[in-house]
Amino acid sequence: MIIKSTNIYTPLRKIDGYIKIENGQIVEVAAGLPADYEENELIDYGDQTILPGFIDLHTHGFATGSFTHQQTADSVTEMSKSLAKVGVTSFLPSTGADAISTIQNMLAEADQAMKDWTPNTGAEILGIHLEGPFINKEYKGMQKEEHCIDPSVEVFEEMIEPISIDKIKLMTLAPELPGALELIQHLNRHRIQVSIGHSAANFDEIKEMKDYGIGGVTHMFSGMKGFHHRELGVAGAALYFNDLYSEFSKQTGLTVLPEAIDITFRIKGLDRITLCTDTVGLAHIKEPTYHYIRQITFIPDGDYVILKHDDGTEERLNKKSFDDLLDVEVGYLESVQNLMQNNDLDFADIAKIASENTAKYIDIYDRKGSIEVNKDADIIVLDKDKKLVQTYIQGTPQL
Amino acid sequence: MIIKSTNIYTPLRKIDGYIKIENGQIVEVAAGLPADYEENELIDYGDQTILPGFIDLHTHGFATGSFTHQQTADSVTEMSKSLAKVGVTSFLPSTGADAISTIQNMLAEADQAMKDWTPNTGAEILGIHLEGPFINKEYKGMQKEEHCIDPSVEVFEEMIEPISIDKIKLMTLAPELPGALELIQHLNRHRIQVSIGHSAANFDEIKEMKDYGIGGVTHMFSGMKGFHHRELGVAGAALYFNDLYSEFSKQTGLTVLPEAIDITFRIKGLDRITLCTDTVGLAHIKEPTYHYIRQITFIPDGDYVILKHDDGTEERLNKKSFDDLLDVEVGYLESVQNLMQNNDLDFADIAKIASENTAKYIDIYDRKGSIEVNKDADIIVLDKDKKLVQTYIQGTPQL
Repeated sequence: MIIKSTNIYTPLRKIDGYIKIENGQIVEVAAGLPADYEENELIDYGDQTILPGFIDLHTHGFATGSFTHQQTADSVTEMSKSLAKVGVTSFLPSTGADAISTIQNMLAEADQAMKDWTPNTGAEILGIHLEGPFINKEYKGMQKEEHCIDPSVEVFEEMIEPISIDKIKLMTLAPELPGALELIQHLNRHRIQVSIGHSAANFDEIKEMKDYGIGGVTHMFSGMKGFHHRELGVAGAALYFNDLYSEFSKQTGLTVLPEAIDITFRIKGLDRITLCTDTVGLAHIKEPTYHYIRQITFIPDGDYVILKHDDGTEERLNKKSFDDLLDVEVGYLESVQNLMQNNDLDFADIAKIASENTAKYIDIYDRKGSIEVNKDADIIVLDKDKKLVQTYIQGTPQL
Repeated sequence: MIIKSTNIYTPLRKIDGYIKIENGQIVEVAAGLPADYEENELIDYGDQTILPGFIDLHTHGFATGSFTHQQTADSVTEMSKSLAKVGVTSFLPSTGADAISTIQNMLAEADQAMKDWTPNTGAEILGIHLEGPFINKEYKGMQKEEHCIDPSVEVFEEMIEPISIDKIKLMTLAPELPGALELIQHLNRHRIQVSIGHSAANFDEIKEMKDYGIGGVTHMFSGMKGFHHRELGVAGAALYFNDLYSEFSKQTGLTVLPEAIDITFRIKGLDRITLCTDTVGLAHIKEPTYHYIRQITFIPDGDYVILKHDDGTEERLNKKSFDDLLDVEVGYLESVQNLMQNNDLDFADIAKIASENTAKYIDIYDRKGSIEVNKDADIIVLDKDKKLVQTYIQGTPQL
């Protein structure tokens, strides 16, 4: 298969050229046209935009699947399917602060989903992001306080017992908690990336510990000790230290103002910024729940969910319908569209923060994260309105 | 007079050359030596550093004089004298939040000091910085709460009645207070610079009002609504808007951490940074006073002041002795030395933030703020340890 466009974003430059794909891999990327090809293997996207697929390192659920609320292999597979429809080609299903036994079950289920996965079933499941349970109650956000516990290598090992450790790609923790340093060193030895999140760490603590294996921070500004000029906190450390990555999630402007994001971009540049969604698959909650940021009460109703808005309006959505659920949460593509508009980013910037940096952060840039020879053909096509035209996962079209 | 050195900092470059001074003005600046000169008019500083003199836009007192505590023409003249000994060649004696009648008296006294000033008496008195009284009680810092009042053009005009309005160079106010916009417009029409300080203004208020004549912020980070990712506050506005100047004072690391300063430098560059001291002449307090940051109780004792440190030690200092008082507060030169060390600045950076930017901020760059032809010969000489060798004020040596 040969994909052709006048706007293909490779890491070094935008080219007017083609991508040749064989067995799910990119085998040629060049300007112009191949020396030799058959007309029927060529797909010409004209001047539509070709980007590396988005990588979501932090999502608990989206649209038809919620790992958080359903906790099944099937829910992860549904996430794969739904994520592919918003430009995500690979992701880390993410856990939260929960009982160790609950997390164990979730890991076993996710492991099953990984085994079941094929390029035909949706976005690739790269492994797991463990967000907690070793986080600080003081900055729990929407995590469950009773399950925020102190770090422990022993508890960690017990918790991940159902799954091979190399499936754990990322862990969010609070480094100021007792036992954190030992766990960070343990994770580092196993090449598991560590992000600071839900943390009251102060600047000096981070300064002392970061070189032991802390890569960056989870949902920059949210769930962390904020910036102050006499105690820079987690946010200040992320701004100050150029080697720490800052993850931004769901850029609606609700949780972090565009100007705060812009300040971060200007001080850090884009080389240490990653984008994620941190969506949870809200439609799949088990109990009626009020969402204070969205000002909506979610009420489960069998195969449906009822959304009661504070303004009195009501919706009834099918939990198995992607189209019904698309607007329940801000998905990856919409987040990209918002960022481009609010923060004046171009497609090259997006390729960097959504694909290249995310891949580098969990050390899979040798096979993902850019349109280059020998990488997986994880590619998306956007039209001039930034709407998704096609998602290729290892060369397999999803739409 | 001709000053020669291998390290003369002009705005565009450091030169190995000379500065020719006539009638207090710089008439030539060039590399090498003048075409024609007499040996006895040349002062050769070898490889010592020649900088434009520091400009302090925000000082309430220093060493032997305190405008805040003594409130006399003589106290301002004493400030001139002491400031020249730490590299300051011109300054704005600054008022605080006080009774209108008190400020009126202070302005009359400062006006007298300006009339009495000559280049032989010390640093030039450029005019007045009115810090308040139109500031917010919520962020009063060490200002007197009972004298923090709402902005009013009428009260302003009454307050400055004893002095010509063109002697008012800068006003610090809280733009969120009722009446502020009208006053800002009034100040702008009279070419009086406006800084935000002691203010709870939010980002949007500043965004709306800044183009009416707000130049920047007073003592960045201190006495202002801090940065938050959902409400950027005054600090966030100063970080975000490139056209706002940020003033930093007394860089001891106590009030604002070097890393917070560094973050500001990295995001704004140095073009919108000014340096000041915000010293008050602590030795001249009228009542025994505990200084919580310095952990010292100051007890007046006739011509002396007793400093009782929390650690039990005690000092008795002569209020008329510069040498006795030099270390009571961090002066301009010490602040520069700290900044260079903690924030990795060089002399060209210092010339920019201490002289060029301060002069531009109050619109006197046509005659101050750099070593250039047709400017006042306000020049300082530093040795390799950054100790002051000489201060020239309009060509008159001070040491």
